[in-house]
Formats: sequence, structure tokens, C-alpha cells
Amino acid sequence: MTQAKGRIICAGLGPGDPELISVKADRAIRGARHVAYFRKAGRQGQARRIVQGMLAEGVTEYPMEYPVTTELPFDSPEYNALLAAFYDQWATRLADLAQDHEVVVLCEGDPFFYGSFMHLYIRLRGRAPVEVIPGIPGMAGCWNVTGQPVTWGDDVLSVVMGTLSEPDLIRHMRGSDALVVMKTGRNLPKIRRALAAAGRLDQAWLIERGTMPGERVVRLAEIEAGDCPYFAIVLIHGQGRRPVSMPEAAE
Amino acid sequence: MTQAKGRIICAGLGPGDPELISVKADRAIRGARHVAYFRKAGRQGQARRIVQGMLAEGVTEYPMEYPVTTELPFDSPEYNALLAAFYDQWATRLADLAQDHEVVVLCEGDPFFYGSFMHLYIRLRGRAPVEVIPGIPGMAGCWNVTGQPVTWGDDVLSVVMGTLSEPDLIRHMRGSDALVVMKTGRNLPKIRRALAAAGRLDQAWLIERGTMPGERVVRLAEIEAGDCPYFAIVLIHGQGRRPVSMPEAAE
Repeated sequence: MTQAKGRIICAGLGPGDPELISVKADRAIRGARHVAYFRKAGRQGQARRIVQGMLAEGVTEYPMEYPVTTELPFDSPEYNALLAAFYDQWATRLADLAQDHEVVVLCEGDPFFYGSFMHLYIRLRGRAPVEVIPGIPGMAGCWNVTGQPVTWGDDVLSVVMGTLSEPDLIRHMRGSDALVVMKTGRNLPKIRRALAAAGRLDQAWLIERGTMPGERVVRLAEIEAGDCPYFAIVLIHGQGRRPVSMPEAAE
Repeated sequence: MTQAKGRIICAGLGPGDPELISVKADRAIRGARHVAYFRKAGRQGQARRIVQGMLAEGVTEYPMEYPVTTELPFDSPEYNALLAAFYDQWATRLADLAQDHEVVVLCEGDPFFYGSFMHLYIRLRGRAPVEVIPGIPGMAGCWNVTGQPVTWGDDVLSVVMGTLSEPDLIRHMRGSDALVVMKTGRNLPKIRRALAAAGRLDQAWLIERGTMPGERVVRLAEIEAGDCPYFAIVLIHGQGRRPVSMPEAAE
């Protein structure tokens, strides 16, 4: 590794409420002179929105705009080539910046948990010092706002992506106690069918924009079939073992 | 619900490093006049240790000492009765306190994710206002300190408890991509056997006291069979889909 005078700090932002950012990441963000974040072209971006009002005056911003989001199938060679080149270019740019500067990269949720930063992280190895500050995963913000514990005792929690095939979804829905389904959006009709086939649709909640303005917590079975919010997860709470009070003790 | 003047705030402490507590929980803890936390009898307790140096002068502390930990089988009627009475009594005591005071209950990790506070939470319903502040789950602190992302693309993550039977462990180890095993300790020999049977022992890491002083990150296959640290998790990283750079693009 070259002797960089700067470094890259990836700050996990947590589920969306800026008050849920860690003390360490909060300090890094407020003190940053150079801030990078992913966003869809032409949008402000969720990560940038979370830190609104937190950035220092005169900060230099580096919006990293995805060259493609859902226009191409994510398993096509074109998609792979475009995304790989995008991550390659930004890794090089950030590594160059980190020769002289400290750069804070904003990352929603926890950076190592299905985060886009990971694609930069593996490309930055040996090229610049990188520190990753964990964050509260988005799913934890979502189960918090349902007001119900998600796992008890020996419960098995499975986290699955809505991009899986319907048979794979059904298998994991049958095999776990608590369940989180991420990457919902256009996959929501398939997720509903899989939950129904697994006999668990009645237990499922949809949480949209958990801990953020516009938050919505509803039973999945009760929403319109065509209602497929992009920024949402599906959640089933576990019902595992817990010490049960005797009737007299519980009044 | 009676018209309480106070309330109960459960503050998620995250994985152990006090810098990883959320801004919101940090403020609640530093401003608290009444602080409660679980601990094993005769110990300082992990939650109390994390907030060392953060509590205000003159704070009143309420150590909630488990009447039993591993002396009785967790599925025995005696264990259930002792724990249920313990949670009943503390729920009543906290509800009484919350009539006039704000009480902060400390909870390691995320309170709704296999946390002991949940047993108070369900008993406090309708008796006192309760706010739960989420935290970074212990497992996220652990995968962070391995320096490797835990899930990519369509990876399935399963979180299982070491208390499960060996056949159940094997089934979940075979059925997931990324894996977290909690409640290890005396279950570690069984967990090792199950990982070996599932053909995944070589991929497994043991993380002890992740993000805390004394942190240890080792390959599970490389430690002594009798080395069963209590405060540890076992982790397997997913290796899912990611955009792959062309050789020329990656230099």
C-alpha cells in the first residue's frame, strides 16, 4: 500500500432516523471535509437525505450515481459490466483522494450487510486505509417500529432477498421462525404468493420507510396487490420460547 | 394505562464499544437519573461495563440480578418459574418507578433481537409508557471486526442458536449462505460437529468480545476443542453475486 496521508471512512447511517446513527459515525460525518454517497441519477439519494443538516459548511460532495438500476436484468452481462466499471472508477477516484484527504463514504444501514460500499471496499484493498463504522441494519429499525420483539429463545431468523425464485422463497419461509424479506418492490407479488404457499401470509408485516418520515407499518395481507413500495421490507416475528408467568403471579 | 408522569426507555447499547451507541441512546443514558440493567449475581455485568464513565453523578442504579443462569436446564419448569417470577417482579417495580420517574433500562445489542428486555416489555404493556431505542446487534459488531462483508447479492443469512439440536443445526447450516450462531459457550463442541457434518467448518470464524477490549477473531477450526468462550458468536460469510471487474479494468 502506498503511504496515504488520508484514509476512507465508511459511516453506517442506520435505518434512516439520523438520531440512530452511532456516536462515532455522527462525529465522522459532522467533521468531514469530503463526503461521498451513492444515489440514483437525478435523485438526492436516501443516504444524503439522512445527513441533511449535519454536514459542515464548505464540505465537498461526491455523489456516486449508479449508471443503471432496474433498467437491465441484474444477472445480465451488460449490467455486470456497467456496474463493475462504475465501482472500478469510483474506487480509483476515492483511493486517489485518500492519498491526501480523509473521505467519509455514507452508507445506509450497516455497510457490511448487503451494502453497495462492499463493492468499493474489496477494490480498495491495498490501495488506501479504510475504516468501516457499523450501523443499525435497516431491518432492525423496521422491527423496532412494529413494537414487537422479532426473535425469542431458540427462534431461527432467516433474511432472504425478494429476488430469489418462488420455490426458494417458499423453502426459506417454511424453514425459519422469524423472517425478513428485503429487496421487495416489484418482487412483492411473488413474495406474497410464496408466503401464502408457505402458510405464513397472515403473519407478515410490510414496513415502509421504517424510522423515517412517511413510515408505514401494515399487515401485508391487507394492502392492495399492486401496492409495491420500493423502500420496504416484509417481516414475520418469531414466537419462540419465553418464561411464562403463572396466572396468579401475573395477576 | 394509569397516567404515568414518567416512562421507561430501553436503550440498545450495540455490540460493546460505547462509541457504537446511537446518538439518541447516548443522550438518554448520559441524562438518566435512574438506570436499570440485567446482570449475573455478583458480577458487574456487560451492560453496566459498556456505559462505564457515561452515567451522571448521583444516578440511582437498579441491577436486575438473574435468579438463575445455567444452573438449571432452560426448559425445566423450575427455570421457567424462577425466571417468570423475576421478570414479573421487575416489571412491577419498574412500572411503579415510571409513575414519577424516567427510567433508562440498558440492553446490550438490539433490545428486540433475542434481548432479555423483551420479557419486561411484554409485562409492561398497559402499565407504563415504554420507548425502545434500537441498537447495532452484537452480530453486526462481530462481522464488522472480521473485516469482511457478511452478505452479498441474493445471499440468505440465517441466525441460529447453539441451543438447537444437532440435526436442526446441520439443516440450517446447509440451507443458508451466510450464517450466524449465537448462544455458543458450552454448545460449541456440538456447533463444530454440525458445521463439519454440513461441510462448512473451514468457512467458520469465532468472534469473541467483538468491538470490545480483549476482542479475538479466529478460524473456528484452528482453536482447541475445549476452548468455549461464553461471549462469542460463530460466523460464516456469504459469497454471493457481485459485479466482477474485467481483468483489464481491474488492472
